[in-house]
Amino acid sequence: MTDLVTFGETMLRLTPPAGDRLETTDTYDVQPGGAESNVACGASLLGVDSVWLSKLPKSPLGQRVVRELRGHGVRTGVAWADPDDHRLGTYYLEHGGTPRGTNVIYDRADSAVTTVTPDELPVAAIKGAERFYTSGITPALSPTTLATTRTLLEAAREADTRTAFDLNYRSKLWDPDTAAETYRDLFPLIDTLVAPVRDARNVLDREGTPIEIAHSLATDHGFDTVVLTRGDSGATALHADEIYEQPAFETETFDAIGTGDAFVAGFLARRIRGDDVDTALEYAAAAASLKRTVGGDVAVIRPEEVEAVVAESGDEISR
Amino acid sequence: MTDLVTFGETMLRLTPPAGDRLETTDTYDVQPGGAESNVACGASLLGVDSVWLSKLPKSPLGQRVVRELRGHGVRTGVAWADPDDHRLGTYYLEHGGTPRGTNVIYDRADSAVTTVTPDELPVAAIKGAERFYTSGITPALSPTTLATTRTLLEAAREADTRTAFDLNYRSKLWDPDTAAETYRDLFPLIDTLVAPVRDARNVLDREGTPIEIAHSLATDHGFDTVVLTRGDSGATALHADEIYEQPAFETETFDAIGTGDAFVAGFLARRIRGDDVDTALEYAAAAASLKRTVGGDVAVIRPEEVEAVVAESGDEISR
Amino acid sequence: MTDLVTFGETMLRLTPPAGDRLETTDTYDVQPGGAESNVACGASLLGVDSVWLSKLPKSPLGQRVVRELRGHGVRTGVAWADPDDHRLGTYYLEHGGTPRGTNVIYDRADSAVTTVTPDELPVAAIKGAERFYTSGITPALSPTTLATTRTLLEAAREADTRTAFDLNYRSKLWDPDTAAETYRDLFPLIDTLVAPVRDARNVLDREGTPIEIAHSLATDHGFDTVVLTRGDSGATALHADEIYEQPAFETETFDAIGTGDAFVAGFLARRIRGDDVDTALEYAAAAASLKRTVGGDVAVIRPEEVEAVVAESGDEISR
Amino acid sequence: MTDLVTFGETMLRLTPPAGDRLETTDTYDVQPGGAESNVACGASLLGVDSVWLSKLPKSPLGQRVVRELRGHGVRTGVAWADPDDHRLGTYYLEHGGTPRGTNVIYDRADSAVTTVTPDELPVAAIKGAERFYTSGITPALSPTTLATTRTLLEAAREADTRTAFDLNYRSKLWDPDTAAETYRDLFPLIDTLVAPVRDARNVLDREGTPIEIAHSLATDHGFDTVVLTRGDSGATALHADEIYEQPAFETETFDAIGTGDAFVAGFLARRIRGDDVDTALEYAAAAASLKRTVGGDVAVIRPEEVEAVVAESGDEISR
Amino acid sequence: MTDLVTFGETMLRLTPPAGDRLETTDTYDVQPGGAESNVACGASLLGVDSVWLSKLPKSPLGQRVVRELRGHGVRTGVAWADPDDHRLGTYYLEHGGTPRGTNVIYDRADSAVTTVTPDELPVAAIKGAERFYTSGITPALSPTTLATTRTLLEAAREADTRTAFDLNYRSKLWDPDTAAETYRDLFPLIDTLVAPVRDARNVLDREGTPIEIAHSLATDHGFDTVVLTRGDSGATALHADEIYEQPAFETETFDAIGTGDAFVAGFLARRIRGDDVDTALEYAAAAASLKRTVGGDVAVIRPEEVEAVVAESGDEISR
Amino acid sequence: MTDLVTFGETMLRLTPPAGDRLETTDTYDVQPGGAESNVACGASLLGVDSVWLSKLPKSPLGQRVVRELRGHGVRTGVAWADPDDHRLGTYYLEHGGTPRGTNVIYDRADSAVTTVTPDELPVAAIKGAERFYTSGITPALSPTTLATTRTLLEAAREADTRTAFDLNYRSKLWDPDTAAETYRDLFPLIDTLVAPVRDARNVLDREGTPIEIAHSLATDHGFDTVVLTRGDSGATALHADEIYEQPAFETETFDAIGTGDAFVAGFLARRIRGDDVDTALEYAAAAASLKRTVGGDVAVIRPEEVEAVVAESGDEISR
Ligand SMILES: [Ca+2]
Ligand SMILES: [Ca+2]
Ligand SMILES: [Ca+2]
Ligand SMILES: [Ca+2]
Ligand SMILES: [Ca+2]
Ligand SMILES: [Ca+2]
Ligand SMILES: [Ca+2]
Ligand SMILES: [Ca+2]
Ligand SMILES: [Ca+2]
Ligand SMILES: [Ca+2]
Ligand SMILES: [Ca+2]
Ligand SMILES: [Ca+2]
Ligand code: NI
Ligand code: NI
Ligand code: NI
Ligand code: NI
Ligand code: NI
Ligand code: NI
Ligand code: NI
Ligand code: NI
Ligand code: NI
Ligand code: NI
Ligand code: NI
Ligand code: NI
Ligand code: NI
Ligand code: NI
Ligand code: NI
Ligand code: NI
Ligand code: NI
Ligand code: NI
Repeated sequence: MTDLVTFGETMLRLTPPAGDRLETTDTYDVQPGGAESNVACGASLLGVDSVWLSKLPKSPLGQRVVRELRGHGVRTGVAWADPDDHRLGTYYLEHGGTPRGTNVIYDRADSAVTTVTPDELPVAAIKGAERFYTSGITPALSPTTLATTRTLLEAAREADTRTAFDLNYRSKLWDPDTAAETYRDLFPLIDTLVAPVRDARNVLDREGTPIEIAHSLATDHGFDTVVLTRGDSGATALHADEIYEQPAFETETFDAIGTGDAFVAGFLARRIRGDDVDTALEYAAAAASLKRTVGGDVAVIRPEEVEAVVAESGDEISR
Repeated sequence: MTDLVTFGETMLRLTPPAGDRLETTDTYDVQPGGAESNVACGASLLGVDSVWLSKLPKSPLGQRVVRELRGHGVRTGVAWADPDDHRLGTYYLEHGGTPRGTNVIYDRADSAVTTVTPDELPVAAIKGAERFYTSGITPALSPTTLATTRTLLEAAREADTRTAFDLNYRSKLWDPDTAAETYRDLFPLIDTLVAPVRDARNVLDREGTPIEIAHSLATDHGFDTVVLTRGDSGATALHADEIYEQPAFETETFDAIGTGDAFVAGFLARRIRGDDVDTALEYAAAAASLKRTVGGDVAVIRPEEVEAVVAESGDEISR
Repeated sequence: MTDLVTFGETMLRLTPPAGDRLETTDTYDVQPGGAESNVACGASLLGVDSVWLSKLPKSPLGQRVVRELRGHGVRTGVAWADPDDHRLGTYYLEHGGTPRGTNVIYDRADSAVTTVTPDELPVAAIKGAERFYTSGITPALSPTTLATTRTLLEAAREADTRTAFDLNYRSKLWDPDTAAETYRDLFPLIDTLVAPVRDARNVLDREGTPIEIAHSLATDHGFDTVVLTRGDSGATALHADEIYEQPAFETETFDAIGTGDAFVAGFLARRIRGDDVDTALEYAAAAASLKRTVGGDVAVIRPEEVEAVVAESGDEISR
Repeated sequence: MTDLVTFGETMLRLTPPAGDRLETTDTYDVQPGGAESNVACGASLLGVDSVWLSKLPKSPLGQRVVRELRGHGVRTGVAWADPDDHRLGTYYLEHGGTPRGTNVIYDRADSAVTTVTPDELPVAAIKGAERFYTSGITPALSPTTLATTRTLLEAAREADTRTAFDLNYRSKLWDPDTAAETYRDLFPLIDTLVAPVRDARNVLDREGTPIEIAHSLATDHGFDTVVLTRGDSGATALHADEIYEQPAFETETFDAIGTGDAFVAGFLARRIRGDDVDTALEYAAAAASLKRTVGGDVAVIRPEEVEAVVAESGDEISR
Repeated sequence: MTDLVTFGETMLRLTPPAGDRLETTDTYDVQPGGAESNVACGASLLGVDSVWLSKLPKSPLGQRVVRELRGHGVRTGVAWADPDDHRLGTYYLEHGGTPRGTNVIYDRADSAVTTVTPDELPVAAIKGAERFYTSGITPALSPTTLATTRTLLEAAREADTRTAFDLNYRSKLWDPDTAAETYRDLFPLIDTLVAPVRDARNVLDREGTPIEIAHSLATDHGFDTVVLTRGDSGATALHADEIYEQPAFETETFDAIGTGDAFVAGFLARRIRGDDVDTALEYAAAAASLKRTVGGDVAVIRPEEVEAVVAESGDEISR
Repeated sequence: MTDLVTFGETMLRLTPPAGDRLETTDTYDVQPGGAESNVACGASLLGVDSVWLSKLPKSPLGQRVVRELRGHGVRTGVAWADPDDHRLGTYYLEHGGTPRGTNVIYDRADSAVTTVTPDELPVAAIKGAERFYTSGITPALSPTTLATTRTLLEAAREADTRTAFDLNYRSKLWDPDTAAETYRDLFPLIDTLVAPVRDARNVLDREGTPIEIAHSLATDHGFDTVVLTRGDSGATALHADEIYEQPAFETETFDAIGTGDAFVAGFLARRIRGDDVDTALEYAAAAASLKRTVGGDVAVIRPEEVEAVVAESGDEISR
């Protein structure tokens, strides 16, 4: 029985070794990555029965993606495309310490998923599921993915499958105004909204404290739950008219990419289990802090590890 | 003073470690590769002053390409494109022993070079050069590259720069009939044609022995020189109504990709120096055999090494 | 719907880099390996819906095994053991060219699987399956695995699931006489016997040509099918009183481990599809030749590749 | 002439690359590690003539251990066991930043050393030595190693070789009560006790400040010297009724494993040289801080480096 | 048109992996490094048209150096030496965290450059250039390089090419008194002096605050500009009787080697562009902070990155 | 008790990965290598108690050499030199398949060993030994090493320690005439001469068949034993007026460097054990064939492996 269905693009992530630059490296570490598969994988490792829907070229590259997700325990509902006309998106990721920062170069235009239609996907999987999740990246990819996103959200609504949506605004995909318009069209179909406060301010034009923003979003769009993330400063949630504040856990960062997806995976894992928002929020923050110690997009983290962080005893050598 | 100008696409080549498969690997070796830059680099290392013309995204990925070519001593005449709209092509290369063979997956559609026009390029470089080289890949990339190829060949013709063209038929880019039609349109602008016998047969519809094919091509299209390559079986050249036969040198293959480009680089290096076709042919075959011992697309080979092979004394430890 | 169920031990395989020795290396390549999971994985990649049954410690090491198998598309029916008392077997593999040969050191004593009982396993999976496969390694591991092997074979027999058994004699696990006695006890439950001719001679005390040995085994034990493998010299099969001879395909060996399992995977894949023994035998030999070009225990090979070898056109660069 | 003899188990340590997890990695760094060989190696590199006694399988894996120790300058007194019945213990080590911490999985049951008896070992080496060292891990491995530990300690006592013992409590080997009982039986044979304060509290049931605990242990068991370590907070020693306090030196940790062994190696190196406890304690703390900058179990550190840290001038580039 | 000419030695730098020690490693990362080529490369990447003058053995090792510099966009004016009598210098670099520090072992005696004379070099390049740069390492290498350094500085002076000189005192090459004497002989030929305050104190025997030292040096030797660097504490400049203070930017250090050269490259890049000393100083400090995040001697840093640090917005993920 | 003492230079060997070239690589595999330590290590691994005499800089680089040799079980008698004035020789090794061949660049001038005098070495070790070995490389390094070689050979002669000498002519160290003169001066001190037939012809000016050359050398110089090696064609020995012919064993070459040293190690191992020349010759040839399958200069080969090759059963997987 499926707990969670996610839908979105997964790319090959190409990363040079630490200290190397994209313009000089001769080696990449390669690994699939994408917000919605990151959430599916992270949730699966935390005990959630997860399905990921997408479209891939029927080639070793598409198989590379499926293998990784299956390894994390995710079932895949893939529309296989002719590899002669459909490519796999890639993204180049260069880690750098302060003050250099991390640099990402996307090469995702015209990837197979930009052509995915609902009839190519096992949409029925959504019907039996507890939750459906996608993010603001997916509708930005193409008019077709926007239409498909809407159709899948409607399918969830009809099936009483609760929906979650992470704003995930990407300035390289669209401008804030276009994005905001699309978001607003989709919001009526969303139960739980997750968003960085920064995006709520810059893209959704909200002002005030996180608490004020959460209230204003919930009021305007009727969300059941709003979760605003603030990076190192933690997260603020609004649910059933109650506000929850959660600080971030201390962490030594090895790879920051995927932190937000780990947060969502942890949050949904606990909500699907029936836990309250405050419990889920703490679990989400702990999962996010653990993710940063692991290389790659995916939070390869087990429930007992998250629980140990929550119980504040995760930093000893056990032997 | 420039000896050789080449024009064409260079991609990032992504290769898993030996024994790994594209569908399972977590690492790529990365290196730029492309027929025309391979020829420019190989010729440069053999002492030819070479320039490569192309178009690249102005990004660390485009810089990665330029760095590699400069390292080989090639000067680059690059039209820099906005990296937000123009991508760098990539290709995935999986080596495999018999009976698996080598597998190549191209991801080159819509790369920056497909939009290159003559006015973006330092075409004047062709004017002072001895030779201009491009291959049958370039006109296959887009109508724009076809037009630009024709314009550059015409510029060479006007400048009395001799032209060389490697058929390099790629079935993943176009079908034989379309290719043949384009080839025939460009042939009047070509002095030296290099082609695999196989492509002469399958694409140009030639029949008979290599000698017969060379004669028929020269007769039909007025080439100054025709060189037909036969892989392990060597090469056949026709020039000034004389036939030259060159067997292949024995070689232990580490990386077969780029063998044909090494052959052309060796051939042009000697012709530019003023050597006869038979001398150039032997040098070309030796360069090709050496290339196969080196990883990567480029023949990182020095003149004294080619000469040692020609002199049949290249296989001892020198110490 | 399940096509194939296999049952057996999977270990972590630890391999130094090429040219290094176990007594000097500082690095291992690590990958799960075991005859029955190799067959399940190989068959899965060739299109067979496969399930693997076994017992593992509930630890990151046990998860490492499950991840790999899932990546190959295999479903896993695992009895999870307390990692404080149950270990994962390992094996150290050193490749060496002639005359050094390959060296294997097993460290498999007391692994979790030696305690596996039928009630811990989802035996029902066998009931709906086309075929059940295990090898002569499994009953050698412990009296418990011997008993469980027998029970699973009986379950298959009762369910009309056809059974296949690879002799896989391991001199480091038991002596020939003990092995032969156990084999003979299990043979009445076996439909298809696969065995190296060498083991048939040395362990089962058979004499004569492969054809004579196949006949004598079939006569004595009532096998539906007998397949005798002869390494580089190919294989001989007996089925329905007919003899089939299959030469080995030429291959450049990167990693010889798992060749026999690839052969079995290919054979079963075609038999499950309903093909005749001669077709399956040729497919098996092609899969085995391809396996040797790939690193690791598992034949990461796709159906179109096997078909290309059978059609004798697998050794060109496709581009 | 031998300064130091140690006795204990050495395993192969298997470590994934930084940022990788045991459940996903395809590579291990491999290196021998064990408390008593770590002390022997660390002391040897600090100028102490050291011998290590143990039992190993006579195989490339056992040779791997001996090679590493010899490389560090240690002489080995090894009882070689039949590799068909005796295995080498291994341990899997996963480093992780805060809050993940370091995870260790031991696979040491039934290793060759668990069967070692005094008559297999060159016990005479203890007779001429200055010091004999073993740790609380060794008697926990098996009744046989407990008996052998006792015999070797008695041999040291008879030979006027001073003995040192690090409590090294391992909860995965035994429970606190059993451990404490064994410790108390061995304590009369010990001159210098080293113990983490934490273990003194939890296993030996001591209460109070480190100073109070040191006094109570010395009083109860008649130790010549007691050293209590407190991680980042330094160490406290009691000797000849005097208390010495030593803070920890600042350090950037690359690999924390083996810090305690480096401390003991540094302490014994100076005590063997005839230095006082306070000098030895400072040297020990400096060696421990340096060890954390080096990968692997062993403190690959030279005397001049320790002296530079003591002299507070170790952090400049020297060129 | 050339902006900057530098002259000095470049060696192969050999570095073990992080956490490994020179006495145990089996692998080196290899990359050319040398103060004057580091400055040429850094400046080139920041948009300066740079030429590097030196002498190298005509061998693959000499070519290795040229390739790297060309990759960074530097043109090379190399005197090629017979590799049978002339070697390439190397240096071994071991990174270590606190308190271990970084260790450098030079193996540069008798390298080809120690024999370089002005007539072997394209000295004319200096004539058309904006600036000429060398450092205090070059005259320390041999009497020949001292004489050549002087000749090149004189050539710059005559050509109205402004000169810059980094003190770069190396205690492994000469003692402070000999160095100071040479420096003082060369100072009349220098326009811009860069020096660590520490060296100004210890080698040039200056006392007082950085400001006092800058004034005293300018007064005594008539420098147009004096820049004194103070590591983490920033830099102080004196120009046209005005003092400029620049703090260091915060940085996470991956590789500290080459920080000073990055500073000089940044400073000269802006001065060549015509910017004021204060602008150049800030740019220099930002380039230095970025360099520390990149592996290798060379500051592989682009202008927009330096500008982003100056604008204090360089530490976000851009996507 | 010492069986074998060797004397000579050991360098750091720097090797790029397979398929890479010295002019492009960014990585070296590093490992000590030198003819006389190769022989000492190879013999030690074959059961011979071996000592190696030499001089090294007292630095991590010198320690790197000692560690490796100790790991192979060799005791080292090292004269430690001040690392500020004495360097460690290095050599760059590039493997290449046919027709490229292997390339070696020596950087050994002025290494510490060129200054070694007998009084710095534990010459007494030779007195108790069975055999003393050095090669024609050592006297070529400097007048000092020539004098020391002579002194050590004389010490052996006086002590009735039998001497062996491998011609090992290196054209990069001296010319044939100078070499031959030195050889002839040393020959009266040599019992066993090993030489490639090629060197016997080109350097010692011998003509005729190997048998004729062996006889003429023995007659002229009074050798007890002469062994002439012929690469793939095997070896010819003359001893006590009898001729022995030994073909080479078939081998798949991974690393050809050190083959001759492995041959000598095998030969001496058996002669020291008291075996006849024919037995030793076969063992030597088997050891040489095994060496070629192992990376590095040293024959990491155990006696049972050599014996298996001699018994022609070494090429199976044992499991
Ligand atoms: Ca490389
Ligand atoms: Ca990541
Ligand atoms: Ca990996
Ligand atoms: Ca290639
Ligand atoms: Ca290592
Ligand atoms: Ca495998
Ligand atoms: Ca791998
Ligand atoms: Ca360790
Ligand atoms: Ca190694
Ligand atoms: Ca560097
Ligand atoms: Ca690199
Ligand atoms: Ca070697
Ligand atoms: Ni490269
Ligand atoms: Ni992964
Ligand atoms: Ni990363
Ligand atoms: Ni991976
Ligand atoms: Ni993987
Ligand atoms: Ni390759
Ligand atoms: Ni490459
Ligand atoms: Ni090592
Ligand atoms: Ni090591
Ligand atoms: Ni393998
Ligand atoms: Ni392998
Ligand atoms: Ni993998
Ligand atoms: Ni570590
Ligand atoms: Ni090593
Ligand atoms: Ni570094
Ligand atoms: Ni590189
Ligand atoms: Ni590089
Ligand atoms: Ni090698």
